[in-house]
Amino acid sequence: APRDYIRDGAEIYRRSFSIIRSEADLSRFDELEAKVAVRIIHACGMVDVVNDLEMSPSFAAAARAALLAGAPILCDANMVAFGVTRARLPASNAVICTLADETVPDLAKEICNTRSAAAMELWRPHLEGAVVAIGNAPSALFRLLEMLDEGAPAPAAIIGTPVGFVGAAESKDALAADGRVPYLVVRGRRGGSAMAAAAVNALASEKE
Amino acid sequence: APRDYIRDGAEIYRRSFSIIRSEADLSRFDELEAKVAVRIIHACGMVDVVNDLEMSPSFAAAARAALLAGAPILCDANMVAFGVTRARLPASNAVICTLADETVPDLAKEICNTRSAAAMELWRPHLEGAVVAIGNAPSALFRLLEMLDEGAPAPAAIIGTPVGFVGAAESKDALAADGRVPYLVVRGRRGGSAMAAAAVNALASEKE
Repeated sequence: APRDYIRDGAEIYRRSFSIIRSEADLSRFDELEAKVAVRIIHACGMVDVVNDLEMSPSFAAAARAALLAGAPILCDANMVAFGVTRARLPASNAVICTLADETVPDLAKEICNTRSAAAMELWRPHLEGAVVAIGNAPSALFRLLEMLDEGAPAPAAIIGTPVGFVGAAESKDALAADGRVPYLVVRGRRGGSAMAAAAVNALASEKE
Repeated sequence: APRDYIRDGAEIYRRSFSIIRSEADLSRFDELEAKVAVRIIHACGMVDVVNDLEMSPSFAAAARAALLAGAPILCDANMVAFGVTRARLPASNAVICTLADETVPDLAKEICNTRSAAAMELWRPHLEGAVVAIGNAPSALFRLLEMLDEGAPAPAAIIGTPVGFVGAAESKDALAADGRVPYLVVRGRRGGSAMAAAAVNALASEKE
């Protein structure tokens, strides 16, 4: 006998977002910010993650405008890049992850840093006005901030949701304290590639 | 001035796993199960996820043996597939995700189910003795259970960590209640591609 579950993808989304909106307090967000919050909650199954979610005042509008204008999406991990739904992108935006580039392992040794941090060097030609989505490595986010300190071109917005026990919370606190670039962070240890991709997906399309 | 963070990837892993082992109660697990639990906690930044983690008695040993014997790893989402660290695999195991196959959208319409569920049909030639990692779609896990009901060949082990608000908890309860195949589940709404990939990565190599 067939098992009892919903087989209509669109209906699953509708019910999911409806449950999230009934359970989560989204009152401090505007409409676009609320969509971002809903998709981040959806990606992790936790309504209370909204308590750790912080967007700077201009973040959502700046990221949305950049995507509409064709900005590339720079991802620290392939999991982030593969979580971005291409069909939602408004301008066939490029989705770029440089982590697997063959030059990265040597570059990491040269700069005495992680491969995730070394991969940031290859972002330079794409950085100006880009939407950055860092969902995995604290060292990538720290290195990007150092590059901005050194005068690298500024992205339009930075989604910072590195996850974990060493440096993740600190890297997100540093991004929020920095203030030069509109940002989204999930404070604390929680985060991940799925949340970073979910934020991009929410910003990419009007469609809930 | 350079910012203050750890730049040595191996050291970041060591400290992370050390923090997790100091905070998490892993006493109900054997050595291999504990490694799986540690990596799942690492993937999500939440020590308390261990309370929702359940492995059937033969799961870890069966999955490990299958990987050593060269079993393919069947993933419901590309995010899971890209989370599997190829260098850790003991037998250059194939990592297979059929979701993007060009036949899947039509197949989904034909069987009146989600694309994630339709993609399971393309697993049939690979199913026997495989290690299954479903980290995203409840409908994929439900459909796989239906295929087993209908007599499809059994995988060696199923990692079931779909995430979300509609069907996720139910699909994992159904997997655990089924009992035909050794399983790992994270009960409730939490889960995700990163947890599924983390379980594979823990089982794939002796190296912590």
